Amino acid sequence: MPRYKLIIEYDGTPFSGWQMQENGPSVQARLREAVRAFSGEDFIPRAAGRTDAGVHAMGQVAHIDLTRDWPAATVAKALNFYLRPDPIAILACETVPSDFDARFSALARHYRYRILNRRAPLTLEANRAWRVVHPLDRDAMQEAAQHLVGRHDFTTFRAAGCQAKSPLRTLDVLSVERDGEALEITARARSFLHHQVRSMVGSLKLVGEGKWTPGDLRTALEARDRRRCGALAPAHGLYLTQVDY
Amino acid sequence: MPRYKLIIEYDGTPFSGWQMQENGPSVQARLREAVRAFSGEDFIPRAAGRTDAGVHAMGQVAHIDLTRDWPAATVAKALNFYLRPDPIAILACETVPSDFDARFSALARHYRYRILNRRAPLTLEANRAWRVVHPLDRDAMQEAAQHLVGRHDFTTFRAAGCQAKSPLRTLDVLSVERDGEALEITARARSFLHHQVRSMVGSLKLVGEGKWTPGDLRTALEARDRRRCGALAPAHGLYLTQVDY
Repeated sequence: MPRYKLIIEYDGTPFSGWQMQENGPSVQARLREAVRAFSGEDFIPRAAGRTDAGVHAMGQVAHIDLTRDWPAATVAKALNFYLRPDPIAILACETVPSDFDARFSALARHYRYRILNRRAPLTLEANRAWRVVHPLDRDAMQEAAQHLVGRHDFTTFRAAGCQAKSPLRTLDVLSVERDGEALEITARARSFLHHQVRSMVGSLKLVGEGKWTPGDLRTALEARDRRRCGALAPAHGLYLTQVDY
Repeated sequence: MPRYKLIIEYDGTPFSGWQMQENGPSVQARLREAVRAFSGEDFIPRAAGRTDAGVHAMGQVAHIDLTRDWPAATVAKALNFYLRPDPIAILACETVPSDFDARFSALARHYRYRILNRRAPLTLEANRAWRVVHPLDRDAMQEAAQHLVGRHDFTTFRAAGCQAKSPLRTLDVLSVERDGEALEITARARSFLHHQVRSMVGSLKLVGEGKWTPGDLRTALEARDRRRCGALAPAHGLYLTQVDY
């Protein structure tokens, strides 16, 4: 029974997220349907990151098992065929050992958050970035971000409904780069709490606007209190870009 | 009677092009409606580039005249308000002398063409790039492109219905860069013939695939024969990025 690792790209806009839901189309359900249409088999794919509604992926990873030993290139091609016309694409497919698990074998997850710092409404990047009108101070955001790097109790930056047993996480990277009107915030960790990246970005935006100092972000972290978090950044600026194994 | 220069961004996907048409929505008509909704005045905006259906703009320039002397920032804000929810945005607005003409005063037009060289269908960049599956040789494309730079008779790379009096144009820049799976072709000239950029890109793609040598592109140029042009590259990979005055 071969296991296949899939690298997946999707536009999260039309989906209620990765995870299958009672209501609304999910990436997981569409992929499951494509697997069934191709192979006749029912396997619920498991992914590295359970992205929320509207969140995009450029390098989501999932695994599936198939009874028959198809060439990996055939699996990718067939799934892409059956995924049409939905905005989900299999970028790569390879066979992996049966103990590979897209979720539990992951060593690091990389996210990118995209802000367009401008007054004009978005056109080409509508649903692809967060428009922030107030000029953002990248250097202050970068300085503040460094207070979050390392092993911390991230209760402040965790969704109320987060199901993780512990609020402790080790954030390896949180960096803020500016390229013209675009700001890109990169985050890397072995795993994240629910809403952690969007919570951190929402608070970093307050620093960028000058409403918080970098020290205020540190104080918010140390408070371990969800009410101290800035407003959650919108889903449509967030991308799961890479998963390391 | 103040004249305003507008820098405009749009997603060309839902439009039949810049120019007003009997059938189908145009960027020009939507802008005219927004001007009327804001000021009560009817002025047909004139643009630097009459982009085709599906072609995008990140730096289109148009001018409008208004009777009343509005602050430029007010004009931009009001037009953006009345352009909603269409994917057209005024990025900048300034008053200009009355002899400024967005079309005839332009000294150079910059276009960018985006190719994604990959097997997987496009998701996040659907309608934003041309997917080309066959691996493209960037160096061969760059070499071939240099044969087109300079002053030439571009009859081979001109739409059958092109209304320009002369097929002579001076191409200042035509360069091909690769960044991972993305190829970006940059073109700059004082003016272009109808379909010139898409015609050149369609032929460069044949060079990249190895179906033509760089010398074949030169031969096609020298033939001054539309039938020698490669298939037109699709509109949705093309962006008008900048106009110089």
